[in-house]
Amino acid sequence: MESVMNCADEQQPSSMANLWSNKQESSRTQKAKGGFVLVHAGAGYHSESKAKEYKHVCKKACQRAVDQLKAGALAVEAVAAALVELEDSPFTNAGMGSNLNLSGEIECDASIMDGKSLHFGAVGAISGIKNPVSVANRLLKEGQKGKLSAGRIPPCFLVGRGAHDWAVCHGIPSCPSEKMATKFSLSAYKRNKRKMELAERMDTGHSQTKKRRQSNENGNGSGCLDTVGAVVVDLEGNVAAAVSSGGLAMKHPGRIGQAAHYGCGCWAENARNIDSYSTAVSTSGCGEHLIRTMLARECSAAMQSEDAHQALLEAMQNKFISSPFLASEDRVLGGVIVLRCCTCVEAQSSQNIQVEFLWSHTTESMCVGYMSVQDSKAKTHISRLPSGTVPGQSLAIEGGVCRLMGVTE
Amino acid sequence: MESVMNCADEQQPSSMANLWSNKQESSRTQKAKGGFVLVHAGAGYHSESKAKEYKHVCKKACQRAVDQLKAGALAVEAVAAALVELEDSPFTNAGMGSNLNLSGEIECDASIMDGKSLHFGAVGAISGIKNPVSVANRLLKEGQKGKLSAGRIPPCFLVGRGAHDWAVCHGIPSCPSEKMATKFSLSAYKRNKRKMELAERMDTGHSQTKKRRQSNENGNGSGCLDTVGAVVVDLEGNVAAAVSSGGLAMKHPGRIGQAAHYGCGCWAENARNIDSYSTAVSTSGCGEHLIRTMLARECSAAMQSEDAHQALLEAMQNKFISSPFLASEDRVLGGVIVLRCCTCVEAQSSQNIQVEFLWSHTTESMCVGYMSVQDSKAKTHISRLPSGTVPGQSLAIEGGVCRLMGVTE
Repeated sequence: MESVMNCADEQQPSSMANLWSNKQESSRTQKAKGGFVLVHAGAGYHSESKAKEYKHVCKKACQRAVDQLKAGALAVEAVAAALVELEDSPFTNAGMGSNLNLSGEIECDASIMDGKSLHFGAVGAISGIKNPVSVANRLLKEGQKGKLSAGRIPPCFLVGRGAHDWAVCHGIPSCPSEKMATKFSLSAYKRNKRKMELAERMDTGHSQTKKRRQSNENGNGSGCLDTVGAVVVDLEGNVAAAVSSGGLAMKHPGRIGQAAHYGCGCWAENARNIDSYSTAVSTSGCGEHLIRTMLARECSAAMQSEDAHQALLEAMQNKFISSPFLASEDRVLGGVIVLRCCTCVEAQSSQNIQVEFLWSHTTESMCVGYMSVQDSKAKTHISRLPSGTVPGQSLAIEGGVCRLMGVTE
Repeated sequence: MESVMNCADEQQPSSMANLWSNKQESSRTQKAKGGFVLVHAGAGYHSESKAKEYKHVCKKACQRAVDQLKAGALAVEAVAAALVELEDSPFTNAGMGSNLNLSGEIECDASIMDGKSLHFGAVGAISGIKNPVSVANRLLKEGQKGKLSAGRIPPCFLVGRGAHDWAVCHGIPSCPSEKMATKFSLSAYKRNKRKMELAERMDTGHSQTKKRRQSNENGNGSGCLDTVGAVVVDLEGNVAAAVSSGGLAMKHPGRIGQAAHYGCGCWAENARNIDSYSTAVSTSGCGEHLIRTMLARECSAAMQSEDAHQALLEAMQNKFISSPFLASEDRVLGGVIVLRCCTCVEAQSSQNIQVEFLWSHTTESMCVGYMSVQDSKAKTHISRLPSGTVPGQSLAIEGGVCRLMGVTE
């Protein structure tokens, strides 16, 4: 198994490493507004022809989060804002333009976690809501308020029709499903349906075992898996993470992927003491692989090691590609974005937090964007496995480090 | 915070410790059929008046699993059989007789995990299926077969209408919802609805904050939480775990609890090497608390320590009652059943495996049953917190140890 490393920190091109070091001196008197956002438009396959659109939506999502941070929002609000932008793009597999399921319907998963309160909200297989992440965020917020009438415990995870109705009851407008499908998603559905019917016709008369094996060969297993997500740290060192997905193309109705699953789609945990890191993670890829390996939580736990790059590399190799939980899988497909920061007393008093950010994937490509409040615009990048390496068996890992400062009013 | 310990191993009454030691000599020539099952009919509150029924259903569930093990079934089949029996009882909050949701409907969660393959299957908010665990088990099995046509990855978690339709497509019959409600569940629904309406009327005119606080005081938070579950080890040392629940009474439609949630409702993991333990865990209690603490997986991980009793005690105290993930909760309500066994070469060659089994809960009571293939009938027990201790802030922990042997043909 080959691992591909293009990273990290000091080895990065100067555009990626210590991004804001030249702004350090001017920040001493800033107020506690600031932060950093890292987004992804999915781990999967991103064609060169659509690279521009993917980068554009990542830029817009970063800008949206930064606008929130500049206005003094906490990390959890900024991450939700980034997700809304990613969902609204017709190019991503989340919200508008999501993959259609077997029945030709859109059912979305999304979740959000606040590293400060450690609260979590998630929706699964939800239809007719333009921004599933907004429902997840509202569930998180309602959960923070305490018990409901008659001592009932508020839900943190709602699915299907019940999730839709809860959203509408809480003032989130319904959106006709047909408005969420795009020309592209509809033509992909027709193409996938033809492909499926053809594969099933070819299998007629073969044994089930043979059919399954042949299907494995037919599928490259690395198609459009472009779940979206974001991780944010604000200047108080609070972290938050979120993820949203239309799920696998031609999934069975009611199927839940990692984007709705606690510990699997996103994870955010503020540092519990001055010796630990605040960490935030968002994942993308094949939902079943990401669920069974609990990849978001595993990567977060790994980030407490000294060397962030080495820790993520080992987590991706040992807890994902070589995971005993996926021993029967020929290709293990996924990607993560990760950030961590130290909120030691020294860093807090100087409002000067060092943020390390990384991304890694076993899919052919992964599109990311990142931006701090000091930046005039986001940087974007489509990370690719080098040609000749095998998706699902190799990985790419990249990242950078920045020093975070407040915003002058 | 007081912890109540009534346990373990050598301190147990002789009926619980070394249960099968007197049968040890006769087992030397046995075939590889055998095993042990531990079930629970929920952590919550079990009235003395219904103790007999709870114990009876636990006995029947143990017998059902043992029948499977005697017939040579693997742990995963035996655990599914135990769950079917538990679901079929009108006294448990699973399958038949489940709690009704806000709309007066039954929506069930269930999951199953096979420690040998590490595969997992789950259904959430499923209606109109008599035995949700059978759908979860079928999802697990289909997942083990590999990819579907056109390279599609089989789902491991289905919810709502999609889950129901998938079950029916796979030969599991539909059951009219009205047949799953019982006289008891319907009267509980009416009682809860009145209680809720009264609480809401009392709150009219008060501020939201006040309303929430008062609601906290009204709810004792320790009502009928009687999710059911089981853990099994077969004579090859394979472990499996399963859980099934109708969810909290008056839950919002579409709400998913821990019983459908990977890592939260059940966990099973065969030993990876001769120095480690095979472990299986099933949880019960307040789903949101069990999700946010991932209690099943945490207890499984803890069971790799030398002293099983001490490890579970620490896990329940540090990872549940005092968990930073539940810092805002006044009472943390749940229970677990756990087993572990060593499959070292010596144990395997002698077909003589030592099984340690434990249960622990922070709820007022928990009903358990256990049985090995050598037993003529199951033992049952309603564990209670001593009077005067506070549910959600204290715990009880008990258990035993047995030596497992095969069955003579």
